[in-house]
Amino acid sequence: MAAPELLSTTKVSGGELRKYKFKSAALGGLDSNFNLFLPPQATSGKVPLLVYLAGLTCTEDNGAQKGGFFGPASAKGIALLFPDTSPRGAGIDGEDADWDFGTGAGFYLNATHPKFSKHYNMLTHVTLELPQIIDVANLPIDLARQSIFGHSMGGHGALTLYLASKTNQYRSVSAFSPICNPVNCPWGQKAFDGYLQGGVAEAKEQYDATELIKKRTDPVRILIDYGTGDNFYKQQQLLPENFLKAARDAGHDERQVQVRSQEGYDHSYYFISTFAADHINFHAEFL
Amino acid sequence: MAAPELLSTTKVSGGELRKYKFKSAALGGLDSNFNLFLPPQATSGKVPLLVYLAGLTCTEDNGAQKGGFFGPASAKGIALLFPDTSPRGAGIDGEDADWDFGTGAGFYLNATHPKFSKHYNMLTHVTLELPQIIDVANLPIDLARQSIFGHSMGGHGALTLYLASKTNQYRSVSAFSPICNPVNCPWGQKAFDGYLQGGVAEAKEQYDATELIKKRTDPVRILIDYGTGDNFYKQQQLLPENFLKAARDAGHDERQVQVRSQEGYDHSYYFISTFAADHINFHAEFL
Repeated sequence: MAAPELLSTTKVSGGELRKYKFKSAALGGLDSNFNLFLPPQATSGKVPLLVYLAGLTCTEDNGAQKGGFFGPASAKGIALLFPDTSPRGAGIDGEDADWDFGTGAGFYLNATHPKFSKHYNMLTHVTLELPQIIDVANLPIDLARQSIFGHSMGGHGALTLYLASKTNQYRSVSAFSPICNPVNCPWGQKAFDGYLQGGVAEAKEQYDATELIKKRTDPVRILIDYGTGDNFYKQQQLLPENFLKAARDAGHDERQVQVRSQEGYDHSYYFISTFAADHINFHAEFL
Repeated sequence: MAAPELLSTTKVSGGELRKYKFKSAALGGLDSNFNLFLPPQATSGKVPLLVYLAGLTCTEDNGAQKGGFFGPASAKGIALLFPDTSPRGAGIDGEDADWDFGTGAGFYLNATHPKFSKHYNMLTHVTLELPQIIDVANLPIDLARQSIFGHSMGGHGALTLYLASKTNQYRSVSAFSPICNPVNCPWGQKAFDGYLQGGVAEAKEQYDATELIKKRTDPVRILIDYGTGDNFYKQQQLLPENFLKAARDAGHDERQVQVRSQEGYDHSYYFISTFAADHINFHAEFL
């Protein structure tokens, strides 16, 4: 595996934001970008890693530019990894037709439908390939200390990657306005019908946070925030109540699973930036 | 004067970000947008106002989305006003040809060249028209307590509007990587040659911060940050040293004029967000 190409370095909050490009095997050999924030503490030793998964239509830049994460991450000495949200330029018929499927909408799964299975493997990209790239590049990151968070589709990704990991790859998970029960919402059903040969039934096994939390009996560390002014929440795309009920039914108490309803906030990065420090500080306890 | 039309309200950092549209007389009757952040304290009384002027190519959205201002402004109870950077759609021949002149590049002056004088009056727009609109809209803002800050071209705007105000409209000024001596840099010379009938000579009187500080003998409150990794600084578009020397020569000490060189930072919003809280807290002392 070749080292990634460094495209730019930008100083921010006492640390460095680096943009890299590399040929992604997981994404069928396409070029893929990611951003990596190194806090000032990374100049004197290895630091833990918090992975941020962005939502529909986003790239590796949205969370970096608008999340408000760098000040809090710098204070806590945590590196931040911002992957893209899908392969780019796979050339699959129809992949650019909709904003909620295909390009910009990889749903952090490994596709099993033959049409998508060569390129749409964001699960492998995030959980295996990017850590390997970080290792190959000799970056000052302790990969044994990882946590994950995300927004909307990326909140779905963070929750499912955390809950389904056989190796407990992530110590904690948090999410802003996540899609919590995608097998029961239009976004999730459309994605699973398209990417998975077995459709929604196949997704139930590993790509639905509400289904996954039912099967977890060991202690978990989960924080979720959503806004009551969020139109996607109102349209029942997010369904945080389903996740909360399943978590409580499975015996996870408030110390293990916090689901917070934030009065009047919407689905935007203004909401995320408001609670950015809360989420970074939550993960810092476990990293 | 009619009340502005409220286009959207978004909750952020415990307060509200509102986007408004109105027909701007100062901009020749064109529609103009602005964003206004009201901190939570505005629900129980009038709050002071800090005006943010953005840089070349920006709109009223860049500072709101990427500045990182809302958390600190909310903590201090300060409202933030984000004007646009120029008229939009004036239809003047050539106004969309360059990124550093015309649309998105109003330079916060009142044009005297006949080609631009009907529409390019951002000075009046920011200092007179927007406060009147805030008053007409009955917003909970104490217009007797105003300060101003900005970035790059907006830093030039903030410094010159502060220094040239006959009424001491602003209590303090700060700037991120401002154009400090525009009569001596390519951006400024091009703008003044285009917008002003008397060109650079006319600009010296009221649109050059370095010239203006020479004439101020009363106490001033000025904070400037620039990054040593900023390419525009290296290309001598900003010239903060000229401003600092003129300020010291005029008798303004470190308590009155701080010009801080920040090692390795560039011209981007990553730089701004790093020092956002510093600037808000600076203004809070005087508001």
